[in-house]
Amino acid sequence: MRATSGVRVTGPLLTAAGPETRAGLLARASVVAVPRGATILAQDTPADRLLILLQGSVGLSTAEEGGAATMVEIMAAGDALSIAAVLLQVPHPVSAVALAPCRLLAIPAEEFRAAAAADAALLRAAMEQMARQWRLLVDQVVDLKTRDATQRAARFLLHRLPAQRGAVEIPEPRGAIAAKLGMTPESLSRALHGLEAAGLLRLHGRRVDVPDRAALQRVSAQRAGASQGARRV
Amino acid sequence: MRATSGVRVTGPLLTAAGPETRAGLLARASVVAVPRGATILAQDTPADRLLILLQGSVGLSTAEEGGAATMVEIMAAGDALSIAAVLLQVPHPVSAVALAPCRLLAIPAEEFRAAAAADAALLRAAMEQMARQWRLLVDQVVDLKTRDATQRAARFLLHRLPAQRGAVEIPEPRGAIAAKLGMTPESLSRALHGLEAAGLLRLHGRRVDVPDRAALQRVSAQRAGASQGARRV
Repeated sequence: MRATSGVRVTGPLLTAAGPETRAGLLARASVVAVPRGATILAQDTPADRLLILLQGSVGLSTAEEGGAATMVEIMAAGDALSIAAVLLQVPHPVSAVALAPCRLLAIPAEEFRAAAAADAALLRAAMEQMARQWRLLVDQVVDLKTRDATQRAARFLLHRLPAQRGAVEIPEPRGAIAAKLGMTPESLSRALHGLEAAGLLRLHGRRVDVPDRAALQRVSAQRAGASQGARRV
Repeated sequence: MRATSGVRVTGPLLTAAGPETRAGLLARASVVAVPRGATILAQDTPADRLLILLQGSVGLSTAEEGGAATMVEIMAAGDALSIAAVLLQVPHPVSAVALAPCRLLAIPAEEFRAAAAADAALLRAAMEQMARQWRLLVDQVVDLKTRDATQRAARFLLHRLPAQRGAVEIPEPRGAIAAKLGMTPESLSRALHGLEAAGLLRLHGRRVDVPDRAALQRVSAQRAGASQGARRV
């Protein structure tokens, strides 16, 4: 219990649970700290723990039989990494890698399933996580089909911008961001420098300053034409 | 009851339910037939019915505020179209359009939620549907990030090919297939004719003959290079 007594749970999953359920889960949970680059979950291995990302950034990737891994999505603090696999008792469909130093809350899968079976609000929150993760991929599919590299880069920054103007922290390797956005690191670099040249942002290593959210939004909202292979129905 | 007494339920969802649950749901369900082009679900409207596709093909599309709709995915017989929205009592996140004449089983949302709350196997099958739909999008994201138009078209045909060789039926408009695959109709046409010229398939309107599955598989498995904007991690 010592390991989790100081955890301020920020994710929507445990927040939704009743106080008793939450206390019971935290009593059996542990906090795991992993360095950048560490593998957190390996594809096709048993989902024996639910992992809730407390801090950091995690990349999900999937490898087809005999193929290289493809970066699929980046998860943020509050996300439950392995929710469907834990609930359904199936192996992890994807791998998860720390793209920045991470802290995760690890809950034994069996305990979590028992808690979700007993606490309707927790089960609902778990299904909301699944729906949210589906929705994230829908957004990404739309992004990949309808936007060019500059628009995708602009939208990525906008999603991380907390206010009308300010600094976006990018703790992840640029290659991981590029892979998430479906482009080469060179394309991402060109897109960011193009936006900087247009006065829409200033690059400072792992930090990007955005002086005017609305202006960046306008760039991201111009829909790409058919020349990018985009197609609207 | 007359309307559903002849339904042979083919989807995994109701098959997983206990016989009593299934009979109760079917007694309250109705079968809906819709012509090609009909809107089945409208984005942002209440999810008052669970729709299970019995026959046909349904395209899911999503529109951002003020934007045109983008085709996201194509659902096949057995799929539950609105499962997360029904379970969570939230509006439909996407629209659904019949890409071919369709027959659907419609179950009142409230009845389905009550049945899922009472029948653990049904609830599990509902979460499996959600996980499957997430996994479909993961596959599509990988497709969009790592494969060129010809490879994507080849994989689309392979997914529909029941055996080592044979005919693939394509009842959907070509534009919908192209949109699902993230390319223009012209690119899809070029890809298909290129595969025909290479002896890998024969085009006959809505039917495509594949003489040798393994040969088509080899084409689809050659990974695209960085020149297509692909990126592997």
